[in-house]
Amino acid sequence: MKKYKIGVIGTGRIGKLHIENLMRYIPEAEVYAAADVMIEHSKEWLEENNIEHVFSDYKDLLALEEIDAVVISTPTDTHAEISIAAAEAGKHVFCEKPVDLTVERVKDVIAAVKKADVVFQVGFNRRFDHNFRRVREHVVDGNIGDVHMVLVTSRDPAPPPVSYIESSGGLFLDMMIHDFDMVRYQSGAEVVAVTAHGANLVDPEIGEAGDIDTAIVTLELSNGALAMINNSRQAVYGYDQRVEVFGSKGQATAYNDQPNNVELYTEEDISTDKIPYFFLDRYTNAFINQFEDFIKALKGEIEVPVNDVDGLRAIEIALACNESLKTGERVELVYDEL
Amino acid sequence: MKKYKIGVIGTGRIGKLHIENLMRYIPEAEVYAAADVMIEHSKEWLEENNIEHVFSDYKDLLALEEIDAVVISTPTDTHAEISIAAAEAGKHVFCEKPVDLTVERVKDVIAAVKKADVVFQVGFNRRFDHNFRRVREHVVDGNIGDVHMVLVTSRDPAPPPVSYIESSGGLFLDMMIHDFDMVRYQSGAEVVAVTAHGANLVDPEIGEAGDIDTAIVTLELSNGALAMINNSRQAVYGYDQRVEVFGSKGQATAYNDQPNNVELYTEEDISTDKIPYFFLDRYTNAFINQFEDFIKALKGEIEVPVNDVDGLRAIEIALACNESLKTGERVELVYDEL
Amino acid sequence: MKKYKIGVIGTGRIGKLHIENLMRYIPEAEVYAAADVMIEHSKEWLEENNIEHVFSDYKDLLALEEIDAVVISTPTDTHAEISIAAAEAGKHVFCEKPVDLTVERVKDVIAAVKKADVVFQVGFNRRFDHNFRRVREHVVDGNIGDVHMVLVTSRDPAPPPVSYIESSGGLFLDMMIHDFDMVRYQSGAEVVAVTAHGANLVDPEIGEAGDIDTAIVTLELSNGALAMINNSRQAVYGYDQRVEVFGSKGQATAYNDQPNNVELYTEEDISTDKIPYFFLDRYTNAFINQFEDFIKALKGEIEVPVNDVDGLRAIEIALACNESLKTGERVELVYDEL
Amino acid sequence: MKKYKIGVIGTGRIGKLHIENLMRYIPEAEVYAAADVMIEHSKEWLEENNIEHVFSDYKDLLALEEIDAVVISTPTDTHAEISIAAAEAGKHVFCEKPVDLTVERVKDVIAAVKKADVVFQVGFNRRFDHNFRRVREHVVDGNIGDVHMVLVTSRDPAPPPVSYIESSGGLFLDMMIHDFDMVRYQSGAEVVAVTAHGANLVDPEIGEAGDIDTAIVTLELSNGALAMINNSRQAVYGYDQRVEVFGSKGQATAYNDQPNNVELYTEEDISTDKIPYFFLDRYTNAFINQFEDFIKALKGEIEVPVNDVDGLRAIEIALACNESLKTGERVELVYDEL
Repeated sequence: MKKYKIGVIGTGRIGKLHIENLMRYIPEAEVYAAADVMIEHSKEWLEENNIEHVFSDYKDLLALEEIDAVVISTPTDTHAEISIAAAEAGKHVFCEKPVDLTVERVKDVIAAVKKADVVFQVGFNRRFDHNFRRVREHVVDGNIGDVHMVLVTSRDPAPPPVSYIESSGGLFLDMMIHDFDMVRYQSGAEVVAVTAHGANLVDPEIGEAGDIDTAIVTLELSNGALAMINNSRQAVYGYDQRVEVFGSKGQATAYNDQPNNVELYTEEDISTDKIPYFFLDRYTNAFINQFEDFIKALKGEIEVPVNDVDGLRAIEIALACNESLKTGERVELVYDEL
Repeated sequence: MKKYKIGVIGTGRIGKLHIENLMRYIPEAEVYAAADVMIEHSKEWLEENNIEHVFSDYKDLLALEEIDAVVISTPTDTHAEISIAAAEAGKHVFCEKPVDLTVERVKDVIAAVKKADVVFQVGFNRRFDHNFRRVREHVVDGNIGDVHMVLVTSRDPAPPPVSYIESSGGLFLDMMIHDFDMVRYQSGAEVVAVTAHGANLVDPEIGEAGDIDTAIVTLELSNGALAMINNSRQAVYGYDQRVEVFGSKGQATAYNDQPNNVELYTEEDISTDKIPYFFLDRYTNAFINQFEDFIKALKGEIEVPVNDVDGLRAIEIALACNESLKTGERVELVYDEL
Repeated sequence: MKKYKIGVIGTGRIGKLHIENLMRYIPEAEVYAAADVMIEHSKEWLEENNIEHVFSDYKDLLALEEIDAVVISTPTDTHAEISIAAAEAGKHVFCEKPVDLTVERVKDVIAAVKKADVVFQVGFNRRFDHNFRRVREHVVDGNIGDVHMVLVTSRDPAPPPVSYIESSGGLFLDMMIHDFDMVRYQSGAEVVAVTAHGANLVDPEIGEAGDIDTAIVTLELSNGALAMINNSRQAVYGYDQRVEVFGSKGQATAYNDQPNNVELYTEEDISTDKIPYFFLDRYTNAFINQFEDFIKALKGEIEVPVNDVDGLRAIEIALACNESLKTGERVELVYDEL
Repeated sequence: MKKYKIGVIGTGRIGKLHIENLMRYIPEAEVYAAADVMIEHSKEWLEENNIEHVFSDYKDLLALEEIDAVVISTPTDTHAEISIAAAEAGKHVFCEKPVDLTVERVKDVIAAVKKADVVFQVGFNRRFDHNFRRVREHVVDGNIGDVHMVLVTSRDPAPPPVSYIESSGGLFLDMMIHDFDMVRYQSGAEVVAVTAHGANLVDPEIGEAGDIDTAIVTLELSNGALAMINNSRQAVYGYDQRVEVFGSKGQATAYNDQPNNVELYTEEDISTDKIPYFFLDRYTNAFINQFEDFIKALKGEIEVPVNDVDGLRAIEIALACNESLKTGERVELVYDEL
């Protein structure tokens, strides 16, 4: 069995999760090296996990010839630069979403990937969730016929710090971007127009920072279908993640997972435990499954499941929503050929 | 459309319910007369409902030639006497369960019914519940294959007064009798042996009155299948009524109905309203459906759905359970030919 | 007990349902008279139900002094005329939705009602559904805090004949009008702007008739909240009716009712029966409950639960959606003071 | 962090699973050695997993002084021998269930464990399932009050080969033994009497081999409560594992897990995917969690969660069921002091 040598760039919370998942569940992957500008914070942890090649400069990691692929889990504003450098070094790339907050930089990445002819996968992990994937299977198997509507509910349990929001690019680029990808994934169609509605209902400080915390976006799709996404920065009952696809032959609905299925009957009511609060609990499997498919793509067994153009499209849709929200008008999307 | 003239004997709570259901939902039934030893308590109510022929002696009601059928909802110890008198008067009979607490008296009723050649239906209303009926349909349609197990959970929300329990014949004859009928209904088989376990856990006064309030009974069926019934006199969360049939090809499970299906998500948990507390809320449809079938049986369109022998069998099983509980042993049932 | 004498105008399918419900379930209502331009089609049925005063001209019915209130279930284009005549005759009015397809005529009705000082209730029956009412209770009780979003899924099992659609006023006035009222009911707020998206995906003939069959509408509410409604003329799995209200403290979701709760486990899958196909099966209770509240309103015990202004607002929203769909733009609503 | 050096004895399917789980999820455990009489079949696999000390004779493994604990996953008839030898060698022991099929041998193990003063845990993995554990928490937290009934449904998807059944000790010792432990776990009480009912309905060859394939057992508990377990060797729809505890204040019910929660609505019905078919899919977490607690017990942080006496009790109950089935009578259990 060929083992792919992986270098992980960015060893914060998500980087560590990626390392653990690669080590535990992906027998064909070997976490060979790690880099982080603050590598000293992770050194002990990396050592315990027997990762010997550690760097503070990601370029040193890229210089290791034996590395096959990198996983980029650094802050967003470095994604494009590292992706391009990795491609130029001939490494396959798994990059966290979003690839960048600007269309231009994403196109630079696409060009570099094309030139280097490497595999480039974007970390839209939700495509790999067991529930959402099952919905997609029903669509592909024709169980719901032609798709007429895609409805996505996606709410965080609590807003991030306002300081984070200020540099996040706003709700559409930071949060709903996952859901834009979900609509494209489930429908197999492109978004041709958006109308965005937003409100500041959760925390006035978010409004003062120039962002919204509640949003409903309507999307028109290239196959004539309609889609709707609703987001809130705060669902006090947990991390609310649901998808519904409706069509000419029926409907498939994915609900929230629960930590257990125990029902308690009392004199008051019938209750179950809350849905998971933390996104890592909700998407445990999805984070693993996306690496399985990454390895399959490296081996050429499957097409890259979420490629660089997918990364670009989500950003283009998010930017169109920003414009729609500002102008109060429907915004059509026109995509350059790539 | 021929209207069947019905006389209702016993105008307490259940009698009134029967009258309302017959008037509202059974267009081919006309509530023509009513009788009750304490008829003065119901007179005004009956008048408001335009029931003109009212009697304190049920024999006066039976003397009305134009009456086609009677509904008997008097105290249990009068069921047999009135049933026999009604049959002798040539009236069809719908009789509340149990027909009597002794096998002998029920056999007297069966003989009278046979001689008079009238329709005799017992008020095992649960057979007509939309959920339990659907389970039975799955069995009949072969969706679960050969029946291997029938599991019945049946619990009251709160115990009746101890004074009632003292004259009730005990838990098996008063409460579980419905469930014995359910096992026979779902399996389409006869009970050939029982083993009864009981406990006094809800209220010590029930134990002092010589009864149990918690019971698990295992039943062996003539087709080789096994069944289990559990009862409690007190389920604080409501009237718990569930049935499951398991077989060679699958399983059908009927859960509790709920007053609405709204889920409330809060910071604490996810909750729904409790199940109904009151048996009339749970079996609203069943009480109506049994009269629809009674009319169909009167018209000869269907066999009597719960006949006098069904009434007898349930009592014989209950008495066998009483014996099993006393002796701590398995009791086999032998049925006389009828 | 005072009995309110009711005259039912329009004795088609819904008129007959109203008569049955009033007779069976509303003891304080007496169906005293009925009128229909084609009264000969209903005569026998009315006779069987002991309704003696029947007319082909509704004016003759209104001329009966003893009548307290009328129920109007005629074709939409006669609602306003009859409502006004009834009010002028001093009768209280229960009028099916929509009151009219034009704002002007509804305002005429409002003026007549005001002048005559009669009770006027509109037949938005869904407010009285046991599930949706429970959601509203959670909102009113503060269980979900401030309302941030209202999401309504509302789909018919199959489209009406194209001939009907042609004269229906279009999907927004004919079908989504119920959902506009639902958003107002659940939120307790007014709609201040709408953006409508529509598509013709179910049947091309509907498109040729100038209508849409699939729609998603976003609504901005006066309290800052957002709402979304999606409609389809064809959900092959049944009459899909769901409502969700999300807020600062949680969420309440009402799902579809099912005819029974039996689960069948087989080698293939786990399945339940479909949701009801027919709106009368789904809203059985709602149709009854609305008359209970109508009687309470007549007695002055409660405010009219859905009044003439509610009827007007729904139409104004529907017309704004028509405009938004045509122009592709967000449309703000400005309401005249009444 | 102290790492406990573990030797795994028996490297068949379950042994390999244990090794994987220990390596992936239990950072404080190090799989240091492995032994199997057919070690050559596992050698390559063990090598790939970097387990260097491998033996065909378990005694060689026990001879390694640096080993802290052993995990025994050999055939049942060797459990006692190896357990005793391990204890005598001063090793802590995790032993698969059942410890032995005879009371005498289990008592020998208990004596050896006591003498050596080592930790001894039995592999009743279901106690560690996220659903059943949550039910137990509700019991411990007092949410259901005094326990009145424990109901366990436990069915395999398909029967094992008849050759296996012949040497299995029979359904009670081989299969229901898990459920006996579940009743003790959930109730916190001892079983004082059993009545067993069995049938041969799934496959006549099982009957010819002297065993049953369908069973319902009623258990009387030391706290006065009653319990019921039903087993089938064949639930064609999957591995059916449910538990319900009912008490004076309410009820907690654990249902089956499902591979995803997607509902498909079609013209036919509403369906979900089947429950897991394979016990390793159902109890994935339970198999991991039991080792977490084993390590905690080694560290002295918690009592051994399933100790040697728990292992003995389950066998004593199973043997009493065998007797009850044979005689058709209720069998009381008397436990020796240990």
